[in-house]
Amino acid sequence: MSAKLSIEAREQLFTKARTHNGWRDQEVADSLLHEAMALALWGPTSANCLPMRVLFLRSKEAKQRLAPALIPGNLEKTLAAPAVAIVAYDLRFYEHLPRLYPATDAHAWFVGNAPLIEETAFRNGTLQGGYLLLALRAVGLDVGPMSGFDKAMVDAEFFPEGTVKSNFLINIGHGDETKLYPRGPRFAFDEVARIL
Amino acid sequence: MSAKLSIEAREQLFTKARTHNGWRDQEVADSLLHEAMALALWGPTSANCLPMRVLFLRSKEAKQRLAPALIPGNLEKTLAAPAVAIVAYDLRFYEHLPRLYPATDAHAWFVGNAPLIEETAFRNGTLQGGYLLLALRAVGLDVGPMSGFDKAMVDAEFFPEGTVKSNFLINIGHGDETKLYPRGPRFAFDEVARIL
Repeated sequence: MSAKLSIEAREQLFTKARTHNGWRDQEVADSLLHEAMALALWGPTSANCLPMRVLFLRSKEAKQRLAPALIPGNLEKTLAAPAVAIVAYDLRFYEHLPRLYPATDAHAWFVGNAPLIEETAFRNGTLQGGYLLLALRAVGLDVGPMSGFDKAMVDAEFFPEGTVKSNFLINIGHGDETKLYPRGPRFAFDEVARIL
Repeated sequence: MSAKLSIEAREQLFTKARTHNGWRDQEVADSLLHEAMALALWGPTSANCLPMRVLFLRSKEAKQRLAPALIPGNLEKTLAAPAVAIVAYDLRFYEHLPRLYPATDAHAWFVGNAPLIEETAFRNGTLQGGYLLLALRAVGLDVGPMSGFDKAMVDAEFFPEGTVKSNFLINIGHGDETKLYPRGPRFAFDEVARIL
């Protein structure tokens, strides 16, 4: 049996963490991105299918390739972020199942079943994206996830082979608290959950 | 700037946490489920849309309603779990946006756009499901998430009004380490990520 995480850890991951829109002029080491990915990859996925794929844009050139696909409200903060992750999922994830899940022939569940492939990749790639957001916070970074971009443009520019699909973006850095918006309210338990 | 979480916290959330298949005979207080939900609800969603809905099945009667929808391999461990969460998403989530995201008329983005509603609910409801999995671990519980069930049957039984859709299940309790399967391998960074 595990204890609860410390109050400080719960604050860092959940209760005091904020979606950041501005960034302090402070470097983000590539090693932290590696460390966050290594943590996130331990999170559970269905049959250990691990469909998430990530491009971390660090260079000005890479971010300029992304810029035309961003909605105007996301442009400035994204170009200013020390790193931008394109969180995507691989529709060929099931080709790795003989290695990732040797217990049974999980590969056979997916071959030729495009709707199941798409749904499984999207669900599990998104779960992994959630793990990555919290893993980035766990290594001391701030995040600003975004859905406001043209996925078809991003896919054409970064995944032209057509089998990897963009899902959402994450600005990554050390957040500038002076640029925060007011925090949105949350539901109470009884509004969204029940115990039966 | 935040520090890294302690090694013990990172182990509890990510590196030593396991997907559990068997459960010790040890009570799970409802208060821990409330606490995990409260943590998870702080996680970021697009326009704070918070589409996740959760039913926590505690009673034998509630779990028996779920049983016919489970694949055989998930039946016994699910009936034995102290709690089972049905993680779902609400296709009418956007009706709450005037309260959750008062900054702009986000409600208008969705009205009449069924594909955008479905995609947004599924993506953000799944992100929240990932936050919930880690939040349950953060309060000291073990989890066993599952996709192996008949979603249409679960929806007909638990969400007959047709606007809430089941996404995945989570067995919740204190895991029995003697029932663990061998841990699946994970990808190396370079297999699934690149820095550009």
